Amino acid sequence: MNIAFIGLGNMGAPMARNLLKAGHSLNLFDLNKDILAELAAQGGHISASPREAAQGAELVITMLPAATHVRSVWLGEDGVLAGITEGVPAVDCSTIDPQTVRDVAAAAAKQGVHMADAPVSGGTGGAQAGTLTFMVGANKALFDTLHPVLSQMGRNIVHCGEVGTGQVAKICNNLVLGISMIAVSEAMALGAALGIDSQVLAGVINSSTGRCWSSEVYNPWPGIVETAPASRGYTGGFGAELMLKDLGLATEAARQAHQPVVLGAVAQQLYQAMSLRGEGGKDFSAIINGYRKPE
Amino acid sequence: MNIAFIGLGNMGAPMARNLLKAGHSLNLFDLNKDILAELAAQGGHISASPREAAQGAELVITMLPAATHVRSVWLGEDGVLAGITEGVPAVDCSTIDPQTVRDVAAAAAKQGVHMADAPVSGGTGGAQAGTLTFMVGANKALFDTLHPVLSQMGRNIVHCGEVGTGQVAKICNNLVLGISMIAVSEAMALGAALGIDSQVLAGVINSSTGRCWSSEVYNPWPGIVETAPASRGYTGGFGAELMLKDLGLATEAARQAHQPVVLGAVAQQLYQAMSLRGEGGKDFSAIINGYRKPE
Amino acid sequence: MNIAFIGLGNMGAPMARNLLKAGHSLNLFDLNKDILAELAAQGGHISASPREAAQGAELVITMLPAATHVRSVWLGEDGVLAGITEGVPAVDCSTIDPQTVRDVAAAAAKQGVHMADAPVSGGTGGAQAGTLTFMVGANKALFDTLHPVLSQMGRNIVHCGEVGTGQVAKICNNLVLGISMIAVSEAMALGAALGIDSQVLAGVINSSTGRCWSSEVYNPWPGIVETAPASRGYTGGFGAELMLKDLGLATEAARQAHQPVVLGAVAQQLYQAMSLRGEGGKDFSAIINGYRKPE
Amino acid sequence: MNIAFIGLGNMGAPMARNLLKAGHSLNLFDLNKDILAELAAQGGHISASPREAAQGAELVITMLPAATHVRSVWLGEDGVLAGITEGVPAVDCSTIDPQTVRDVAAAAAKQGVHMADAPVSGGTGGAQAGTLTFMVGANKALFDTLHPVLSQMGRNIVHCGEVGTGQVAKICNNLVLGISMIAVSEAMALGAALGIDSQVLAGVINSSTGRCWSSEVYNPWPGIVETAPASRGYTGGFGAELMLKDLGLATEAARQAHQPVVLGAVAQQLYQAMSLRGEGGKDFSAIINGYRKPE
Repeated sequence: MNIAFIGLGNMGAPMARNLLKAGHSLNLFDLNKDILAELAAQGGHISASPREAAQGAELVITMLPAATHVRSVWLGEDGVLAGITEGVPAVDCSTIDPQTVRDVAAAAAKQGVHMADAPVSGGTGGAQAGTLTFMVGANKALFDTLHPVLSQMGRNIVHCGEVGTGQVAKICNNLVLGISMIAVSEAMALGAALGIDSQVLAGVINSSTGRCWSSEVYNPWPGIVETAPASRGYTGGFGAELMLKDLGLATEAARQAHQPVVLGAVAQQLYQAMSLRGEGGKDFSAIINGYRKPE
Repeated sequence: MNIAFIGLGNMGAPMARNLLKAGHSLNLFDLNKDILAELAAQGGHISASPREAAQGAELVITMLPAATHVRSVWLGEDGVLAGITEGVPAVDCSTIDPQTVRDVAAAAAKQGVHMADAPVSGGTGGAQAGTLTFMVGANKALFDTLHPVLSQMGRNIVHCGEVGTGQVAKICNNLVLGISMIAVSEAMALGAALGIDSQVLAGVINSSTGRCWSSEVYNPWPGIVETAPASRGYTGGFGAELMLKDLGLATEAARQAHQPVVLGAVAQQLYQAMSLRGEGGKDFSAIINGYRKPE
Repeated sequence: MNIAFIGLGNMGAPMARNLLKAGHSLNLFDLNKDILAELAAQGGHISASPREAAQGAELVITMLPAATHVRSVWLGEDGVLAGITEGVPAVDCSTIDPQTVRDVAAAAAKQGVHMADAPVSGGTGGAQAGTLTFMVGANKALFDTLHPVLSQMGRNIVHCGEVGTGQVAKICNNLVLGISMIAVSEAMALGAALGIDSQVLAGVINSSTGRCWSSEVYNPWPGIVETAPASRGYTGGFGAELMLKDLGLATEAARQAHQPVVLGAVAQQLYQAMSLRGEGGKDFSAIINGYRKPE
Repeated sequence: MNIAFIGLGNMGAPMARNLLKAGHSLNLFDLNKDILAELAAQGGHISASPREAAQGAELVITMLPAATHVRSVWLGEDGVLAGITEGVPAVDCSTIDPQTVRDVAAAAAKQGVHMADAPVSGGTGGAQAGTLTFMVGANKALFDTLHPVLSQMGRNIVHCGEVGTGQVAKICNNLVLGISMIAVSEAMALGAALGIDSQVLAGVINSSTGRCWSSEVYNPWPGIVETAPASRGYTGGFGAELMLKDLGLATEAARQAHQPVVLGAVAQQLYQAMSLRGEGGKDFSAIINGYRKPE
């Protein structure tokens, strides 16, 4: 299949590599010449613009850092919509606000292009291993069309509803995640201060009503879960800056929808304060450091 | 076994009934004459005071509403410590602050009485069915002594550490629970406002990193989990006033331990505001009503 | 002076009227035909677009609801910058985010137009009476040029620094205001619940360290300040929706600047919840109703 | 006048000194022998217990750190009520929760002693200079009786209502203060990050609706107010630990009164986090350091 792949950063590059390995022909675009050269050496074709990449492609995939990039890559003078053929399926895998997705998809629809949003979870590790989860917003026919290709980059392809709902699912999930990580941090730090053994406390929570992914799989207290970032100095994992970005998307989407998200907003501010202290590069579970005496 | 059982409210009465059924002889005390009469009819012996109940008992159990009652029942002139025999094991099953437990246990220890704390979860339903979870703070020997009797009232008997750690475990767990229920409420309400199907959103969260007991077992959006209070008008379950009490214990214990609990404190205030609106009698998952347009 | 005035809503229309009264010639533009007709009857000239209004004008003033309008009115195909003469001074009086102001001003500067931002406070009453406060971001020369005209619409013309700082001043002030109104609400409601006379409590606060504009001039407890909205059913004044908008600008600007604003974010959410309850049309001091038992 | 003065800490000792200077005869009690010796050298009489101090006194004054001390000093076996003569006026100047004050006053009333609460503001500087503010909860007759003596230790003697309302006034005022200091900190730090001159911003706020004691008199940004702690490294002034204590009293009183105090609770947690970082000894306006990049 001839696929346009635009956006070859930490996530996009390994995703594109998996498509090359699967035997697809790729038109590549990115502002970074080095990564273009590297992927060309692995069989991709370098395009001069998103427009050029989209020309003749049977599928267009984009993976970009933020809404402004999505707008310019799709709607700009040399953008995807200037080059894409009517009827070609398209999917944006960026994590951005639902409204931008819907605006861009509406513009695409005007020229006969059905567009999906499919933000991912699983991090750079999942992108490399081809085990990402895709949360897909698309009509049923488009979802069925995209499914085989997304499956070559991910393991879990979830249909969330019409275009935009992929973003909604992701930011709502990460809203719960960002809050519950702080909840577990407060509880583990409080428990330690009150004299309970941390392993025992984690055991109680995990077999009771406080149980959550943040306590079971990714406990922020060092040594509770051997494979969690907390047990290796809060390196690797899901960076606090990324959580901060996603909570920013959630609160901004909530503002536009006139919905309160009280704990979500406080959580965002706490990660922002963590970032200001210079700890934004650590895994987001390092938020617990704000609850422990500095050493 | 001759057991003193003091405090026969919504929780204490069914617990005492289960001990009577198991064949124990019970010295009962409560301020409510009706419940005393009822339990006497089922084989219990009425005592005139905690002191009298404790006299001659081989085990003392108390189940009281708040720390002030625990102090007076144990330390008062006619209290348990005025009547209890040296060496007799004792356990308080109330949910109160860890400091009070430790103060009372220290007073008991001075006269040769080892005391445990063993707050429960499982509600009145669990108390009746004998399926409570006991979170026990006690030295190992005392824990082993208490285990058979507690097992006649509950199914899950967890040893959390020395006296006081039962309370610590319970308030830390409920701290996470109280917060994560609000997190899920904010996410479910936001998702609905942004146009995703609620069942789909719950599915995404439950198979992803936002997964928690509040989303899986007790989802606050009506109709997601058929057995959850949300699917029956927020009746039954764990009342918001009880959650409010437990978050009050958590933030107060945190204050004494000089620990911040930012989200915990906000959560407490949100349940307090819910209570002020007159909704404190509903299940605590009705906190989601503050995130939905009033009908 | 020949002035282009674009945006004739609740604030813009009375401001334009004051300029007409002062003897200026006005090129008017708005999407609302009725208000255009009304102001034309008072001597203004109707323009077909912002571009046309700007053509030949010696000064351009815009007063618009939000950043998207500012972008399109200034940068659109038929926008101000398509018609304005090089060297003509320009000022946007809208309350929007500082970044948009700076983006538009940078575009204006490219064609030799110096642009200021001058958001106002004082409400529709101040706009009619010509007693607004203008917070002006502009270089000194532009500020001096604008001063006489702004003085015909307002009483207090404050120079805050370079372009964009007018918005910064306004959102920072309103950040403090939005928070302190809730602070006073919590204190007045708590005091009443604890049995102190509200008038006495207000007196203590106002002569002590809790003193603030929200307690002295605009106390949210009914009957404390006779001229405050609280004493007339929370009508008139500064609507909660406007406060919500300004706190949204503050938290969004903070997000872009990587600054935490914890209480600001919580305050925004509390006004958002108030709005969801259907009370957004009331004066913002009605936030106190969330702290009092519903009647 | 023969006065019992119990509690000779940082506040109590200079207050007692002012009474000695005014010519009163003082029965002194404290656990600190050194301060007793020092004040004895200045003319006071050392008592062996609160009871002994109260015996024969025509007025009893206490100034203690926390509620537990107030309970034991007044109600203990060797406490004030064991020694005081019926009809003698009494006043507690400690800052504690209103409920404890009311409990102790009720016990005093049972033996014919009218008791007032009169917490102070003004710090150790005010205690030394005799310029404290006393917030007095007492019936009118008792207030009139106490007024002349309190005036020898303070400048501003405010009648807040019946016993307990002195505490209510103080904690409600400090609730507003603790919150508004954070509000001003967030606004000043945000403004700086967004490029406005801090002196200009403070000027705008102080002449507008954000105006408050924290912005005008005690601005947390260094160099804005020369006499504020911010301009001398956050030394002197009102320690963050004291603010933390008062916010703890406010949220605990709110809990007992079933009142939400959302921003108050968040503010408490932010001061708690500041304390955990080891900055609790600084003036409370150093809360702004959490909003600025560490140097």
